[in-house]
Amino acid sequence: MPILELHVLEGYDDDAKRRLAEGLTDAVRVVMPAPPDAVTVMIHERATSQYMRGRRQRTGAPALPDPCRIVRDYLAAMEARDVDAAAGFLGEGFTMVFPGSGPMTSLQELIDWSAPRYRFVRKTYEGFDLAPTPGPAVVYARGTLSGAWPDGTPFEGIRFIDRFEITEGRITRQDVWNDIAEVRP
Amino acid sequence: MPILELHVLEGYDDDAKRRLAEGLTDAVRVVMPAPPDAVTVMIHERATSQYMRGRRQRTGAPALPDPCRIVRDYLAAMEARDVDAAAGFLGEGFTMVFPGSGPMTSLQELIDWSAPRYRFVRKTYEGFDLAPTPGPAVVYARGTLSGAWPDGTPFEGIRFIDRFEITEGRITRQDVWNDIAEVRP
Amino acid sequence: MPILELHVLEGYDDDAKRRLAEGLTDAVRVVMPAPPDAVTVMIHERATSQYMRGRRQRTGAPALPDPCRIVRDYLAAMEARDVDAAAGFLGEGFTMVFPGSGPMTSLQELIDWSAPRYRFVRKTYEGFDLAPTPGPAVVYARGTLSGAWPDGTPFEGIRFIDRFEITEGRITRQDVWNDIAEVRP
Amino acid sequence: MPILELHVLEGYDDDAKRRLAEGLTDAVRVVMPAPPDAVTVMIHERATSQYMRGRRQRTGAPALPDPCRIVRDYLAAMEARDVDAAAGFLGEGFTMVFPGSGPMTSLQELIDWSAPRYRFVRKTYEGFDLAPTPGPAVVYARGTLSGAWPDGTPFEGIRFIDRFEITEGRITRQDVWNDIAEVRP
Amino acid sequence: MPILELHVLEGYDDDAKRRLAEGLTDAVRVVMPAPPDAVTVMIHERATSQYMRGRRQRTGAPALPDPCRIVRDYLAAMEARDVDAAAGFLGEGFTMVFPGSGPMTSLQELIDWSAPRYRFVRKTYEGFDLAPTPGPAVVYARGTLSGAWPDGTPFEGIRFIDRFEITEGRITRQDVWNDIAEVRP
Amino acid sequence: MPILELHVLEGYDDDAKRRLAEGLTDAVRVVMPAPPDAVTVMIHERATSQYMRGRRQRTGAPALPDPCRIVRDYLAAMEARDVDAAAGFLGEGFTMVFPGSGPMTSLQELIDWSAPRYRFVRKTYEGFDLAPTPGPAVVYARGTLSGAWPDGTPFEGIRFIDRFEITEGRITRQDVWNDIAEVRP
Repeated sequence: MPILELHVLEGYDDDAKRRLAEGLTDAVRVVMPAPPDAVTVMIHERATSQYMRGRRQRTGAPALPDPCRIVRDYLAAMEARDVDAAAGFLGEGFTMVFPGSGPMTSLQELIDWSAPRYRFVRKTYEGFDLAPTPGPAVVYARGTLSGAWPDGTPFEGIRFIDRFEITEGRITRQDVWNDIAEVRP
Repeated sequence: MPILELHVLEGYDDDAKRRLAEGLTDAVRVVMPAPPDAVTVMIHERATSQYMRGRRQRTGAPALPDPCRIVRDYLAAMEARDVDAAAGFLGEGFTMVFPGSGPMTSLQELIDWSAPRYRFVRKTYEGFDLAPTPGPAVVYARGTLSGAWPDGTPFEGIRFIDRFEITEGRITRQDVWNDIAEVRP
Repeated sequence: MPILELHVLEGYDDDAKRRLAEGLTDAVRVVMPAPPDAVTVMIHERATSQYMRGRRQRTGAPALPDPCRIVRDYLAAMEARDVDAAAGFLGEGFTMVFPGSGPMTSLQELIDWSAPRYRFVRKTYEGFDLAPTPGPAVVYARGTLSGAWPDGTPFEGIRFIDRFEITEGRITRQDVWNDIAEVRP
Repeated sequence: MPILELHVLEGYDDDAKRRLAEGLTDAVRVVMPAPPDAVTVMIHERATSQYMRGRRQRTGAPALPDPCRIVRDYLAAMEARDVDAAAGFLGEGFTMVFPGSGPMTSLQELIDWSAPRYRFVRKTYEGFDLAPTPGPAVVYARGTLSGAWPDGTPFEGIRFIDRFEITEGRITRQDVWNDIAEVRP
Repeated sequence: MPILELHVLEGYDDDAKRRLAEGLTDAVRVVMPAPPDAVTVMIHERATSQYMRGRRQRTGAPALPDPCRIVRDYLAAMEARDVDAAAGFLGEGFTMVFPGSGPMTSLQELIDWSAPRYRFVRKTYEGFDLAPTPGPAVVYARGTLSGAWPDGTPFEGIRFIDRFEITEGRITRQDVWNDIAEVRP
Repeated sequence: MPILELHVLEGYDDDAKRRLAEGLTDAVRVVMPAPPDAVTVMIHERATSQYMRGRRQRTGAPALPDPCRIVRDYLAAMEARDVDAAAGFLGEGFTMVFPGSGPMTSLQELIDWSAPRYRFVRKTYEGFDLAPTPGPAVVYARGTLSGAWPDGTPFEGIRFIDRFEITEGRITRQDVWNDIAEVRP
């Protein structure tokens, strides 16, 4: 115990099924003090002809992309200064807040804002956390920043955390905290 | 679709079952693009006599406490300067890191460290996020700080985020980020 | 085979569960050539705390009354000339059609229309059929009529069939066919 | 709620599975006041190697034909005066009763009986109802008749209803009511 | 894996449910190389109102007694020379065969047959095996015999095995093998 | 009732599934007084992507060989004096005890021991019983022996029973009882 049975329409690929089973396992273990080996997940897949809701047969919809993967790819594109690629991950109404900035809504706005603050920045990740919510999926990325101040002096080991909201596979909000102000010259 | 069936040993109270069903619903919707009303959770409860694993009958264990509740109560105790109550929420090996601090392991250490930084601080919460993981449950609390600098000058609206790891119902790690360094006099 | 499992919220009484199991058995045997003894129905009942749809716990609604019972009671009230009781079974927008009548919407209209046709009429039932549909439940009552013509001459053995639509526990339509015109003097 | 799980041996085609799911949905909604979208049907199919009853593995039997389709095709054959085709739908012990007729057991008997009553008749359908029962499946067809009296005078709009009993895919009984006697010259 | 779900009518006591779950666990592990802890059994109990087969609701029957217990109690009664008690465990058509005896059908016959063979005998059990079959339950009791020869000389450590067939809770056949002939004086 | 659902990883062949279903049927009927036709077994098979325990996806292991088949083949090899083939069925720590022998651990030891006892022996089987246990599977073979004494005199009809323990597909223990000492010259 516990045993989880998930009934879905067929069409989800192996990665989606793995993510489902992992997410369900973790969700249960937040409430139940069960060792991992005591948690079993079984996924039952139904063909369209084997399922009816509201007297209508249905077909499955494609899985949502992995929110952590979206965040990783977005941050990699930003670090590579590939603004077009990065912008491709953003959804309608995207807003971001950085330490000391007000709300910004475009990546160009961010680039302009950061120019006087650092020459460049790289992220070393300590971990990602995925928080499912009734609304958007929330992803946290945390670790340390390295880079160079505007005068070229290097820095490293500055703690950061980014919070992302992902709605229907798009980033709609980014909130950033870090210790840059603690340490900048 | 999807339909989730959870088989557990009986003994979980209504709050635990509600938390389980909510967590499972959210976990599924991170992967499947299903509207909330299409997600059904059914909990089947088994008496000890109705369950056997490894040829042994079992009894249920009590539910773990709600990690968000633990964090709220701990932060409330800290805000009320009730250090004993706050310490009661901490687990073996507790460590915390604040902006500009190194790792600290006792609440007194934190109090000493913060004394020259602010006279007092209050938290206004914008939200809590719960991230189940294969290891500890992770809770994020975020919002704004208000309070007074050491000279008594008030401040408010300073963004913060706290990350907590909860292991077997105890806080084992706290990481804090905020914009105090951005704005302090 | 086949085996049917029905998951419902608890609160249905034994009569409702019996009607459910019988209706499901019959519905399956219209499609599958299974002898009755090969059809098994299991009803699983969930408490409110054991069920969530759309991230909301739910409580069961009372069962709908047996449509055949409604029809029997309505026809008994009409035969007993208890118009008030009969009217109590009728729903919004009730309409009825008898052989040679146009649509009628009140029981008084029916009484007036039938006065020159027969002095009284009694029904002997041969059977009731219940046809579930995506819309109203449909009940058929059939058998023979006996009674007396306006001049007091008795009659009997006249075939009839009544069709009823029942919506949310109320009769909303009645269509009547019989052989009165074949045999009346 | 409610959720229905049907376990069957594999081999039923999509039409049979659709009919099963629709019939089960409707059967449940006769008793439970659930909106259609709250009724879910899942069909689980088992291979022969996955099923055993009475310590014997089994294979599925072909689905019974749709009783409404049988009735439609039979009535179409009759209307087209294709007596051989129509007779092919009839089962052992077939009996029919028309308004004013006694029991008849062959289609020729019906043709002879109707000859002095109308030259021909066509049916316009208002609807079909399917009533599953513990015994035969019962199908009702209703609507209006048009055609010509023996003298060639046309008629139309005469209400009719036909009741059919279908046993193991064959019509074994037909009972007809209509308003011909109300309106014939 | 594997996970076993057993659906039964309610009314079985805890001992019967334990025996069911143990027997199912062992039956699975004869075929599947699963460690015991990987075998889960869940018993779902249905009230009479929650179960229908063949369109009839049913009530559960009492569990059969434990065949091993029957055999133990019968052998204890025999050893205590309580022939009446022992006979109470025997069913219609009981037959027994001992080494060198032909078929015997009454306990008195056995007592007479054994009189010249040993003065008394006691059983020390090494184990019982229960073999479910499509027909009677089969129980094996094995171990060693001690006792005294007709002349009073004691013996011990003689291997024996008894095979019992139990039908509907009664012993219907007993077959005995032992090494008495190997060692008797 | 009862209905058994067995969830396994896919990969078991039809013979393994048949053995599982038969064994489960028999195991249930040892406790429940159900006629065979009232016992239904359904096997649900899950692909690796549809199953997770301990947050790890798994693949099925091959079924264990049929213990009765192992015993039959071993005994056939022994009867054919194919000692190499017979030895192939034995597992680590194999021990055997025959009437009047002490424990023996090799087939050669048995051959030497039996040489002065009979020239050869053949088995006629009356039946095999399979007793699943929490430890090894136990198989009983019983019937009668025929053969020839050392002097060539034939014998037949001597009752025997062999008990085998099978661990992970290998015979680890054999215990033999028979009536040879009752009848040998």
